[in-house]
Amino acid sequence: MPPNYGRIPGEGDLLRRIERAAGSRSRSRRDSGIRLGIGDDAALWKPRAGFETLLTTDWFLEGTHFLRKLHPPDSVGWKCLARAASDVAAMGGEPRCFLLSLALPENATGTWLDEFLRGLARAARRLRCQLAGGDTTKKDTIAINVTVVGEARSGRVVRRSGARDGDYIYVSGTLGEAACGFELLKRSKPRNAKRNLALRRHLYPEPRLALGKWLAEKRIATAMIDISDGLSTDMLRLCEASCLGALLDAADFPCHKGPHGRRRSPASSTLLKMALNGGDDYELLFTAPRNALLPREFRGLRISPIGIMTSGPNVVISEPNAPLSKYYVLTPGGWDPFRK
Amino acid sequence: MPPNYGRIPGEGDLLRRIERAAGSRSRSRRDSGIRLGIGDDAALWKPRAGFETLLTTDWFLEGTHFLRKLHPPDSVGWKCLARAASDVAAMGGEPRCFLLSLALPENATGTWLDEFLRGLARAARRLRCQLAGGDTTKKDTIAINVTVVGEARSGRVVRRSGARDGDYIYVSGTLGEAACGFELLKRSKPRNAKRNLALRRHLYPEPRLALGKWLAEKRIATAMIDISDGLSTDMLRLCEASCLGALLDAADFPCHKGPHGRRRSPASSTLLKMALNGGDDYELLFTAPRNALLPREFRGLRISPIGIMTSGPNVVISEPNAPLSKYYVLTPGGWDPFRK
Repeated sequence: MPPNYGRIPGEGDLLRRIERAAGSRSRSRRDSGIRLGIGDDAALWKPRAGFETLLTTDWFLEGTHFLRKLHPPDSVGWKCLARAASDVAAMGGEPRCFLLSLALPENATGTWLDEFLRGLARAARRLRCQLAGGDTTKKDTIAINVTVVGEARSGRVVRRSGARDGDYIYVSGTLGEAACGFELLKRSKPRNAKRNLALRRHLYPEPRLALGKWLAEKRIATAMIDISDGLSTDMLRLCEASCLGALLDAADFPCHKGPHGRRRSPASSTLLKMALNGGDDYELLFTAPRNALLPREFRGLRISPIGIMTSGPNVVISEPNAPLSKYYVLTPGGWDPFRK
Repeated sequence: MPPNYGRIPGEGDLLRRIERAAGSRSRSRRDSGIRLGIGDDAALWKPRAGFETLLTTDWFLEGTHFLRKLHPPDSVGWKCLARAASDVAAMGGEPRCFLLSLALPENATGTWLDEFLRGLARAARRLRCQLAGGDTTKKDTIAINVTVVGEARSGRVVRRSGARDGDYIYVSGTLGEAACGFELLKRSKPRNAKRNLALRRHLYPEPRLALGKWLAEKRIATAMIDISDGLSTDMLRLCEASCLGALLDAADFPCHKGPHGRRRSPASSTLLKMALNGGDDYELLFTAPRNALLPREFRGLRISPIGIMTSGPNVVISEPNAPLSKYYVLTPGGWDPFRK
């Protein structure tokens, strides 16, 4: 007689809904190396031969990283996975599977959860990163933690620490766009989200996986980091790890056009501040030898040289539209929850 | 000139403190397969040949899983890792490394964090599970998420779903002890913690890693689960996964002696309820063929037969000290944050 333990209520129901919505079909699950998914004490995952395993985890908390009133639930679902996958991109790897830890208040287990799972499932398909397991519990505010397991070909991982004196510094995409999108979101209604590029960057960021993998496999990048916390903070982290300084030319920054879409010079101090400290861009900041031939675009994504690594102790930034002799020492101004 | 980026304040300081306290020495880090730990976008981990990778993640939240006023911080540090490692034990694997996600209010970044890290480091050494990376952020209450990466010899993993009709059901250790320890904690002062066994079980649980590994490698267990959520709930989960029912004899339950240390018959309905629904025991519940010769103890840890798997649709439990004809159908009464 077949048993009918659909009778275990509560958390079991929730797990079944998560699995139905975001769980993968068995074929893509196998492709992701998942040999045993949701429903046991632990997931079973098979790494590929010749690859190294990457592990990364990211918080996404109501009140700290998103606001329930402002951010559509499907954006929360998309972004919590995309953020963590961006760390894998920054190592030159590919995401393979993820664990989802979800703490929810009772009033978020209905429509909110359904829409969240829709966004999450869309990101999982897009990033080819399958749900392998997780944990659910109750809490008064929404708390999300995502662990992404990725892979990179052995010996091809790009660290933060590999930059050399004289390497050129590059950044992908546009700086300050997501921060500008957030400003727009606070002012306008989220229904514009899909049409406005800056809003889309803030709500549905795309980790630069193809670029990261290309830079790693072709051995072009000597050091790499994603600028999720803002260029100023993440540039300093790369320099710290590489025991070097840097000279940045603000005039070269691929700044966003600004909240009104009008082209402006990066001299605009608001735009420069957004580019340096706005954060949330999920672009790649990397270094490469001077003689590396880098295209200006990679599959439609702009690649801009913004400076050079130096042996000095500081990151020095030239003022935009001023001779290089006018410069100042960069201080970290990006996202840091514990800065006083 | 050597750079001096100790200047990055805030989150960087916190990471350095975590690494100093709970980060492993390079030798044990290498033993754990960690090839790149804290300080890059992702950790790099090398699985061993001939082993399968286990992935599990667990919440440990203030207010839901622990109370800041009641639980000493070093117990929170120990338990958040031990809980997650218990899931690896239940698959027959060994923990190898872990990711720590920590969200803290400002007032928990001082002494509380130091003591938390002391407990965490002690658990990491004991369980041979090294810190590989994580994420930190700010929040109004303490939120912890731990992802453990483990390994099991290929083809030796024990799932929940492998039980067969007629298999005997066993449980390790004592049931209801941790729940009893929690009752004591609520009544007395935590300074008794190290001396009282029940309190210790609640505050510093020991995942049954050696037993789990032995049962898996010797191919003794056909199905296994840890009873962190309580015997009633986890027995039903094992039965659901194995598409079987079970017959349990409550008279055989290795019940705890009770809060006052006096031996009592498991007929005591409070003790039986604690054994069934108390949860937090982190013992192993497993099934094995009738002809498997199981010792009564494994390295000092009691192993008790408590029932038999059946083809029926229910888990039936006999009343203690009553003929087997007096029985009732077990319903899940263990920990479930979403039960109404």
